[in-house]
Amino acid sequence: MPDVTASFIQQAAAVLNGIAHVTPVATNRQLDTAIQGRVFLKCEQLQRTGAFKFRGAYHALSAVAATGNHRIVATISSGNHGHGVALAANLLGLTAHVVMPAPVSRLKQRAIAACGGVVSVTEDRLSAERKLRDILERNDAVLVHAFNDPLVIAGQGTVMMELIEQVSGLDVLLAPVGGGGLLSGLSVAGHHDLPGLKIFACEPEGALDAAESIRLNRIVPMNNPDTLADGLRTSLGDRTLPILRTHLEGVLPVSEREILAAMRFAHERLRLIIEPSSAVALAPILRRESALIGKRVGVVLTGGNVDFEAMGSFPQSDRSGFPLESKT
Amino acid sequence: MPDVTASFIQQAAAVLNGIAHVTPVATNRQLDTAIQGRVFLKCEQLQRTGAFKFRGAYHALSAVAATGNHRIVATISSGNHGHGVALAANLLGLTAHVVMPAPVSRLKQRAIAACGGVVSVTEDRLSAERKLRDILERNDAVLVHAFNDPLVIAGQGTVMMELIEQVSGLDVLLAPVGGGGLLSGLSVAGHHDLPGLKIFACEPEGALDAAESIRLNRIVPMNNPDTLADGLRTSLGDRTLPILRTHLEGVLPVSEREILAAMRFAHERLRLIIEPSSAVALAPILRRESALIGKRVGVVLTGGNVDFEAMGSFPQSDRSGFPLESKT
Repeated sequence: MPDVTASFIQQAAAVLNGIAHVTPVATNRQLDTAIQGRVFLKCEQLQRTGAFKFRGAYHALSAVAATGNHRIVATISSGNHGHGVALAANLLGLTAHVVMPAPVSRLKQRAIAACGGVVSVTEDRLSAERKLRDILERNDAVLVHAFNDPLVIAGQGTVMMELIEQVSGLDVLLAPVGGGGLLSGLSVAGHHDLPGLKIFACEPEGALDAAESIRLNRIVPMNNPDTLADGLRTSLGDRTLPILRTHLEGVLPVSEREILAAMRFAHERLRLIIEPSSAVALAPILRRESALIGKRVGVVLTGGNVDFEAMGSFPQSDRSGFPLESKT
Repeated sequence: MPDVTASFIQQAAAVLNGIAHVTPVATNRQLDTAIQGRVFLKCEQLQRTGAFKFRGAYHALSAVAATGNHRIVATISSGNHGHGVALAANLLGLTAHVVMPAPVSRLKQRAIAACGGVVSVTEDRLSAERKLRDILERNDAVLVHAFNDPLVIAGQGTVMMELIEQVSGLDVLLAPVGGGGLLSGLSVAGHHDLPGLKIFACEPEGALDAAESIRLNRIVPMNNPDTLADGLRTSLGDRTLPILRTHLEGVLPVSEREILAAMRFAHERLRLIIEPSSAVALAPILRRESALIGKRVGVVLTGGNVDFEAMGSFPQSDRSGFPLESKT
């Protein structure tokens, strides 16, 4: 497997050209005012499948399709990576098996099935891994890991290449961290062009394993994650940990209350639907994190797949600590 | 008061230039497939205040500010027009009074107050009109009607001028009808450049007064409207009725179930937040309305102000009749 380099990410961009959307960048005066700077929201929730994950998945599957040795791929996913794999497989004439550990988003499960993906729901993460091994053996299938794979990481890195073309002079970048695939790609692409860019991982307080893994320089497993951010309930991998240690400025912990407030801000003020996992990266703006004051800050909104009918089931957030009402 | 002409709308565009957003146009393969044509969603829910209403309000208030005889304006509004008036007043150094008949969207009420608008909530439409007269007399204020005003209509017409620049060769245009201000502006601007454009008003079955008014050529008052589409619970006005009679190809009735299905489609597939009033114009695409098959269809998404915490209170929609699941 190759290392993830800027030129490898450029190759990924060539593969994705005309396949993945070039997603828009949104701005908002209230966000600018909050940090007395400028905020640029990279809208990957408007990517195909509603999440950046399609980029890495398509890049990885295009390599499988190109060699022609295998026609079946398999993965474990809470949803967005699985949806990316299923759509990529559909476009490339492959078959995708997606193992989803409970609890499962019905929206994401339906979307994967609608792309022709074969979904297996398992009780928990451990049984998901057993199920995956079983599928790989029976079908002579290729594993497409959600983040611990250079092809996937390079695909995610194309987000940063686009953002740098769309916005000049970024000082800071915020993105959520789960397995670290997105942030690894962003880091390599970002520091290639902008060596002074300060990159922060944003992590739910209820799933702070990445911060701990980076501090201890070993992969701390995720135990009993307690967060709405279903996309971030994974540990780092042995490919992402060293990249993050090299590139990250720091990890910003975000509370569940801040996640909800950021989702609501996006909904009511930006009229954008973002998942809890995305809200984790917006929250530091709303709390006026000191490292952001006066800066030009990019924020990767990673996904927007929220069940319409589940909207009412989020905890009611109080308005204390919610950014001041002001004109839009 | 001047007639609404294409050149009057061009003047409105000059006034709004640099003030109102040029809103994006979204496309989606599933919508194209549904009508075996092309669908172009004009995203006015991403306009300032989250609704097209800001255009007409700002245009009208800029005329008030220019004469300099009055510093106070007043209106009745379910929310979006009031928000537009309040923000425009704030930007132009005027004071806005907004009378909101119950039931009131808390989100919209907060937004108006946050712009410095003075909000009065009244029990019903009738008491709102009494309250408005009282405010106008006491404050020597100028009435800015939500739709029965050429300045407002011309402002809304700028939506069409933009859309024609963004999308070539439109065959059909869909927009919701409440008081008819938006559709009047769209019609004049649309038929000026595209004489063959077929313009359909989309109206909730629970508030079908516009269809009836056009048929009878007199304003049929709205009695006991029964629809989620709070923005469409008004009757036509004496300025909008004749314009709509001249320009409309027809009125498409939309059921409450279709409104909900269209909101959910926008949420889950387009990752866009649209109000029930906007969903009314998207619904005919999803039911594959015969007049749309094979056509290039513009749809005006009028607003996106939905309380985050009210999302759970919508009736649960069943999935029958919901567009087929397919890849995105």
